Amino acid sequence: MTAERIDGKAFAAALTDRVATGAEAFAAQAGRKAGLAVVLVGNDPASEVYVASKHKATRAAGMESFEHRLPADTAQAELEALVARLNADPVVDGILCQLPLPRPLDSDRVVQMIDADKDVDGLTALNAGRLMSGLPGLVPCTPLGCDMMIADRLGSDLSGKTALVIGRSNLFGKPMGQLLLQRNATVIQAHSRTADLPALARTADILVVAVGRPEMVRGDWVKPGATVIDVGINRIDAPERGEGKTRLTGDVAFAEATETAAAITPVPGGVGPMTIACLLRNTLVAAHRREGLSPPEGL
Amino acid sequence: MTAERIDGKAFAAALTDRVATGAEAFAAQAGRKAGLAVVLVGNDPASEVYVASKHKATRAAGMESFEHRLPADTAQAELEALVARLNADPVVDGILCQLPLPRPLDSDRVVQMIDADKDVDGLTALNAGRLMSGLPGLVPCTPLGCDMMIADRLGSDLSGKTALVIGRSNLFGKPMGQLLLQRNATVIQAHSRTADLPALARTADILVVAVGRPEMVRGDWVKPGATVIDVGINRIDAPERGEGKTRLTGDVAFAEATETAAAITPVPGGVGPMTIACLLRNTLVAAHRREGLSPPEGL
Repeated sequence: MTAERIDGKAFAAALTDRVATGAEAFAAQAGRKAGLAVVLVGNDPASEVYVASKHKATRAAGMESFEHRLPADTAQAELEALVARLNADPVVDGILCQLPLPRPLDSDRVVQMIDADKDVDGLTALNAGRLMSGLPGLVPCTPLGCDMMIADRLGSDLSGKTALVIGRSNLFGKPMGQLLLQRNATVIQAHSRTADLPALARTADILVVAVGRPEMVRGDWVKPGATVIDVGINRIDAPERGEGKTRLTGDVAFAEATETAAAITPVPGGVGPMTIACLLRNTLVAAHRREGLSPPEGL
Repeated sequence: MTAERIDGKAFAAALTDRVATGAEAFAAQAGRKAGLAVVLVGNDPASEVYVASKHKATRAAGMESFEHRLPADTAQAELEALVARLNADPVVDGILCQLPLPRPLDSDRVVQMIDADKDVDGLTALNAGRLMSGLPGLVPCTPLGCDMMIADRLGSDLSGKTALVIGRSNLFGKPMGQLLLQRNATVIQAHSRTADLPALARTADILVVAVGRPEMVRGDWVKPGATVIDVGINRIDAPERGEGKTRLTGDVAFAEATETAAAITPVPGGVGPMTIACLLRNTLVAAHRREGLSPPEGL
């Protein structure tokens, strides 16, 4: 048996289409476009690339993109003053501060001061608590995307299923666990201190891996018929492609796992494309709520 | 083998002593006593008993207790106005709204408007999120008490251990899971939709049960050597004590489990007494933070 490849690109494209349709309707109702402000401090090349692609995707979806670029030596107070202005700006629905910030800036202080209703990255403590408490809020984009792909495949109710999340970051592992719990899965949160991870993994109907270790999860860790979501994006040497060449790989040994799993996300092309699509989705949801409108169904 | 009975009464008394010592030192430093405001709406007999015992314990620990009693037909706006006054009152360090509220009052609205820094029940979304994000906050009293008893017995680092939490309420199960995760346990969150709970329970080094079903967890669910924390308090018929008599029992079949577990909390006398002690502890911690002081060690 070979597992179905979950096509994150196609899934993200369909979500982006729904967002674009919703963004057009929003603009007609609200008399303005939904707007996302992105703050970039310094000029880390990877951050430049991410910010540019977010900017492009936001415009393409029919929303405003406000870019704020500050020099690497920006003072903490100055950065916080910008966030405060964006919090107060009525045409800004979402605020994203591209991480990591250059030293010695305190990114946690900056993130926590973002108005939770504009916190489209879902990183404030208030949004984490809303998720944990089952209240409406904004959920971090990567776990949200994984949750959508899982529900699309297995249905919205995961009663009776065991989901193992490997990794417990605030950005991914913990919110992922809460999303699966809300869908009635029995949720196991595992991490670097977990004993006998392979045996635990073999009990999981849904296996979500976010550890940042290339191909750590082997084929014989996967329960037959499991759905495997690989969140890792690791760049490794690929001498088979020529001297000095590299390639991207996930946290799961894809070729092995595909023999046992029923479905699996590839790397690249699995979880990755969902992240920006969910950012657009969160921005549009935030815009609706801020205007007292109901977000469209199916977002 | 018979399991050690974890003596919650003694544990709570020791914590209350530490709080009393800390409360005296706080009063000397701050020039005022730490203060807890309790809001009771209506006259539900059980709530009356709880409020009276909280009042007595607060005074006995050397803190101020402010009782606010409102009639059962109090309007939502009036109750919210009281909470807003308590939020603004500088001598109030903790605010507790005794639940349940009489109908048609919206308790969630009231709870969520409590200043998170005075939310000694740890029920606001912001405190849930602080817990999930590893930020300092206030944690609900019952899971906090269980966490203290577990750490006292097994040490503060639970690396390599598996903890199963049965129950996923906002009040108990979810924060309990987060506390165990912070201590590096591998955490399984189970609930009414979980398949084959007995088999799952047999994998748990730490078994925490909060379901409200008398003696649901049988002896053969318990892994030999496990630590069992029974959060249930159920009143059941006890014909052996005479006609019409009742007794309290937990969610665990104590007599059976005691044959297999290494340690277990009895009901009554286990988790129960810790709840008020943790409420006093949270109030004193909140008081210190509000005055810019460090809470005493070992609280």
